[in-house]
Amino acid sequence: MTIERVAIIGLGLIGGSIGLAARAMQPEVATTGWDADSDVRARATQRGLVGAVCDSVADAVGEADLVILCVPVGAMGYAAEAIAPHLRPGTVVSDVGSSKRSVGEALTKALPGAVVIPAHPVAGTEKSGPDAGFAELFRHRWCILTPGKDAPQDAIEAVSAFWEGLGAKVEIMDADHHDLVLAVTSHIPHLIAYTIVGTASDLEDVTRGEVIKYSAGGFRDFTRIAASNPTMWRDVFLSNRDAVLEVLGRFTEDLSLLQRAIRNGDGDTLFDLFDRTRTIRRSIIDEGQDDARADFGRGDH
Amino acid sequence: MTIERVAIIGLGLIGGSIGLAARAMQPEVATTGWDADSDVRARATQRGLVGAVCDSVADAVGEADLVILCVPVGAMGYAAEAIAPHLRPGTVVSDVGSSKRSVGEALTKALPGAVVIPAHPVAGTEKSGPDAGFAELFRHRWCILTPGKDAPQDAIEAVSAFWEGLGAKVEIMDADHHDLVLAVTSHIPHLIAYTIVGTASDLEDVTRGEVIKYSAGGFRDFTRIAASNPTMWRDVFLSNRDAVLEVLGRFTEDLSLLQRAIRNGDGDTLFDLFDRTRTIRRSIIDEGQDDARADFGRGDH
Repeated sequence: MTIERVAIIGLGLIGGSIGLAARAMQPEVATTGWDADSDVRARATQRGLVGAVCDSVADAVGEADLVILCVPVGAMGYAAEAIAPHLRPGTVVSDVGSSKRSVGEALTKALPGAVVIPAHPVAGTEKSGPDAGFAELFRHRWCILTPGKDAPQDAIEAVSAFWEGLGAKVEIMDADHHDLVLAVTSHIPHLIAYTIVGTASDLEDVTRGEVIKYSAGGFRDFTRIAASNPTMWRDVFLSNRDAVLEVLGRFTEDLSLLQRAIRNGDGDTLFDLFDRTRTIRRSIIDEGQDDARADFGRGDH
Repeated sequence: MTIERVAIIGLGLIGGSIGLAARAMQPEVATTGWDADSDVRARATQRGLVGAVCDSVADAVGEADLVILCVPVGAMGYAAEAIAPHLRPGTVVSDVGSSKRSVGEALTKALPGAVVIPAHPVAGTEKSGPDAGFAELFRHRWCILTPGKDAPQDAIEAVSAFWEGLGAKVEIMDADHHDLVLAVTSHIPHLIAYTIVGTASDLEDVTRGEVIKYSAGGFRDFTRIAASNPTMWRDVFLSNRDAVLEVLGRFTEDLSLLQRAIRNGDGDTLFDLFDRTRTIRRSIIDEGQDDARADFGRGDH
């Protein structure tokens, strides 16, 4: 199958970036879009996030070969219900949610006859809304597809080709495994960042002004992550509960060991871990997933 | 007093940056330097980190008005012992250590007759060694001085003026309060980052390759911090034990509350925290302590 018409439901950071990327890199594909918020639709029209911002969900998806739901994970089921009556037979429905087992189940349940190919582009920034998107967001980033066992091969290939056309690299993975991997590489880091930023702002002996002034010592990197869309992240933790709790348990065990090492003055345990973690950083830079410049180049100018 | 000759002991990221900044921004000040590692001394000479890289600690500090110890916190006492026999009367001794009570005590003990003005420039990158320094590192960053109660005012003012001449903003603070503030804004963020990077690399069901591939979801920011100098950070945790354990206790309490909220499906508790932490990010950007571009500008080009 060939994808000639793509509908994007939800025109925030991810939906808007898909639209901009598709218009720039696959101009032969027609793009339509819709958002439940009329202000977002107006702004999406001004920015040209998609070829046509529609006034109704029916208009947006009616002719589409591929519909991509770009809404918070907790809203995926509702969005699927909303598009269901308006789909042509054979339309492929995908999404961009950060947890995949629960989303896959929600889409399959709401769209019993449709071809569902869940997807997760591992890319983003701390900004959200229709002004946040940009066409380069997915370049050199991975997009993970988690099709069910019965998903047709031509649909998997068509969705893969669409993402590759946006500059992404595609990987196929089991949904449960995806949820565990992303719990480690994304969900727990966000949870920890949110927590420490909250802890810092609640201390009675340290003012918020002091926290802000001296944030260059490490804290500021956490605040970037902790500025991400709160609705999106609430939904991620609720929908990927099992994997998040599993990894969180490992993390708190490891933290307890370091706590004990600090209490006991056991410098060797600390040094061994701190030395080991450097090699992972090098691998991430070698793989092109981050910037090698010191401090991301922030201070290096 | 006026500072005309500055000696820098330890020519890594911080010492090298002080030398480069002084040469660029205060060319009237003569700079000498020494490092215990002869390879570092050779590289420091090649890069011109200071005006004169000396072959002995005696040559480096003999004529100095101000000596700045730029070694790991755990080596401060040894470095102070090494310079002690060679100081002229009236030389001010300072440092750049990330914990201040223990360092202040170590310097005062090793240098009974000297004027000690402990300092901590809140700036750095994940790189270390004589190739890592650059002259702009301290610009718009805070440098905290923690002089003892009996420290002479003219020495405090001279050290302040030197740091301001490197582009830094100076704050005077009690050493114990410094240690608590920095535990929050720097030490605990580093400990958490080291921990989660270690946890991720130990999981048996997720390969290291997967962790690296999908690190753009948040994890990669933690790996940057967790690539910092392991000797330096081991010493920080051992020397600031009380404040680190205090803040770590608060953090783990807060994390337990979120863990329970996830287990119970309590989305309101999650949302309220995630929404609150956004305002701190805005304040940090308003205060000029970080870059407002999405994703630090990494993906925005």
